Amino acid sequence: MANCLVAQSGGPSSVINATVAGVVKANQMNQIYDTVYGGLNGIEGILQEKFVDLTNMSDEENRILQQTPSSALGSCRYKLKRENVADFEKLFEILEKYNIETLFYTGGNDSMDTVYALSEYAAKHGITNHRFVGCPKTVDNDLMVTDHCPGFASAAKFIANTALQTWLDFNVYTRQEVFILETMGRDAGWLAASACLSGKVDLVVLPEEVFDKDVFLAEVKKCIDEKNKCYVVVSEGIKYADGTYVSAGESKNDTFGHAILGGSGNAIKDLILNSGTAERCKVQDLSTAQRCHSTEQSLVDVTESFRLGMSAHMRSMDKNFTGMMVGIKRKEGKEYDVEFFATEAKNVANHVKPFPEEWMLPNYTGISQEAIDYLAPLIVGEPDTIMVDGIQAYVTPYYMK
Amino acid sequence: MANCLVAQSGGPSSVINATVAGVVKANQMNQIYDTVYGGLNGIEGILQEKFVDLTNMSDEENRILQQTPSSALGSCRYKLKRENVADFEKLFEILEKYNIETLFYTGGNDSMDTVYALSEYAAKHGITNHRFVGCPKTVDNDLMVTDHCPGFASAAKFIANTALQTWLDFNVYTRQEVFILETMGRDAGWLAASACLSGKVDLVVLPEEVFDKDVFLAEVKKCIDEKNKCYVVVSEGIKYADGTYVSAGESKNDTFGHAILGGSGNAIKDLILNSGTAERCKVQDLSTAQRCHSTEQSLVDVTESFRLGMSAHMRSMDKNFTGMMVGIKRKEGKEYDVEFFATEAKNVANHVKPFPEEWMLPNYTGISQEAIDYLAPLIVGEPDTIMVDGIQAYVTPYYMK
Repeated sequence: MANCLVAQSGGPSSVINATVAGVVKANQMNQIYDTVYGGLNGIEGILQEKFVDLTNMSDEENRILQQTPSSALGSCRYKLKRENVADFEKLFEILEKYNIETLFYTGGNDSMDTVYALSEYAAKHGITNHRFVGCPKTVDNDLMVTDHCPGFASAAKFIANTALQTWLDFNVYTRQEVFILETMGRDAGWLAASACLSGKVDLVVLPEEVFDKDVFLAEVKKCIDEKNKCYVVVSEGIKYADGTYVSAGESKNDTFGHAILGGSGNAIKDLILNSGTAERCKVQDLSTAQRCHSTEQSLVDVTESFRLGMSAHMRSMDKNFTGMMVGIKRKEGKEYDVEFFATEAKNVANHVKPFPEEWMLPNYTGISQEAIDYLAPLIVGEPDTIMVDGIQAYVTPYYMK
Repeated sequence: MANCLVAQSGGPSSVINATVAGVVKANQMNQIYDTVYGGLNGIEGILQEKFVDLTNMSDEENRILQQTPSSALGSCRYKLKRENVADFEKLFEILEKYNIETLFYTGGNDSMDTVYALSEYAAKHGITNHRFVGCPKTVDNDLMVTDHCPGFASAAKFIANTALQTWLDFNVYTRQEVFILETMGRDAGWLAASACLSGKVDLVVLPEEVFDKDVFLAEVKKCIDEKNKCYVVVSEGIKYADGTYVSAGESKNDTFGHAILGGSGNAIKDLILNSGTAERCKVQDLSTAQRCHSTEQSLVDVTESFRLGMSAHMRSMDKNFTGMMVGIKRKEGKEYDVEFFATEAKNVANHVKPFPEEWMLPNYTGISQEAIDYLAPLIVGEPDTIMVDGIQAYVTPYYMK
């Protein structure tokens, strides 16, 4: 029998490790491969033959791996470029050396391009004994074809609950105030939109929509006039009509003469205070925490991530299964249910799925019921997180062992 | 029978409502008072006779109240000043009008000063039919006499877990990088120190210690030289030897004369990058989320907060029990256990309990085992948080009803 290799790429998430756990568990249940290697630091580490053996992972470790945030195998931002033929040659040499039949690669659209490029190279050179299978992951939820991406829902759940909690916090004083929650999302507004699941968001600004300062400030003013408060959610990647990021800031100083410290949230705060729209403004930038806050995974998310890994492993029994990504399809019907399917990685590579325009309410006033209906089932359920004296149990990253 | 009044003041926490729930439940079990009023927006709202009736709260509402973050009764920053005699006269008039025998006031050292001032005024004017009882709460854990404050442990737990999670996240790439986690803590470093419970903190800077830029940067460099990474935690209130805040935001004061802080993390980032100590630096400012993240309460914390409310209620049977705060005393012995006790509110009013100097390791390299032993038992245990479709159940704030 041959071996397989699983590796992770791009930004981490709360449930990306569950896909690896799924591949490992599937092979324990149906031993397609002799050895399940973990490749460290994505393509970058594979090129350096940095492997660990995951084949006989215990059930306990597997379970803890599923709740461990971030990429337990490490990640990379290394882009496999088609013109760097030497990289391809070296990689196939290594696959030969370790008798690796299938490479499972978890990641976003860059990673799906890697899967596509490798399968393309193999086809071009008549190589039939190495297969490349993509497993989607991205908190941004911006991959094409798949209904949603593992990792998104847990981040969305953290954002929605934090929106509710900070909304409760900022309402305790009677004073006039705007609260701004900044989420990730450079090109797609899925994460910012998910804050609306809290039911507390007054205004939400997504990168899919041009940021019109005057329209936005008029809406803030309406809220302030009505209830002295306004709860705003902004995506990090929002832009003006001319394409410049709002985070670049209009002026470099706030009302107290201090430099603005990064972020669309702080830029929006500056706009609100400088225009006199509100007296007080507080910003919460969720930053890194939103993509690794695994103490509050969505049970739906972590389960799907695990099962997607199993599905990818089982599908790879088919010797022609290469250059494919395993995606999630939402079944028809009232109850939320999914099935897995496969699509060519090239359909996903380097594309971005925007938050649909028809799901945005006018003037940043929220998202439609259809959008809520899409988002709501994804965050349901809480896994029994294993805690040790109040700290979550975790697997020490394999690149540290 | 007379009535009682419970109100909340100062910054909210994840478990401050559990104290209110405790007072209400205690009165249902032992009806000392006819009516348990909730006073809205602290002293500010009480002066406007903004009351709600909490007497017959259902068990379900009581349970959900305990997991609802922030101040369900609203809060205020209104400072009852001894020279404003009119405020005192009006307040006692209102207490007479509603036949309120006992006022339970939850808050920090400012609130304990309110309790002290009211009992002092009563004594001076021979008023014996109104009593004032303080219940400590502050995420900062900086109240004197009490072993710790309800609210602190849940914030500490969120910080420690977020430290672990972001540490796992920032380690996935092989690149050189410093991660800076900024916590609350204007004058006391308890929250920043609690990040060390993660076991992952390389350097921690507390406000109790003078910030020596050169010593700090040398320590960062040591970490970078050794492992290419450095995980730093800083308190918002850290200062240079001349007393100026490291953060950029020290120029505006709030209504109590406290400096409004924020931005020590970004200031440290600038120092690191400008000095060339590391190539890359990321900041996570936990901001408001750390004090309201009630989806991950410490079971110890919420239980103590609830029971402290019950204890305050029962102690108030004593007609001489006034001008007192109920505190938490840690019992001797290997197993963590506490008992409640009472201290005069004036012992707590306007003082700050610093993180002990002898618990800090030299050169910002962490905290001592004794400090860990103090902190660790506080974050233990997870309550069964009631979730509704992935969003935490909560009580609509009473000031909104």
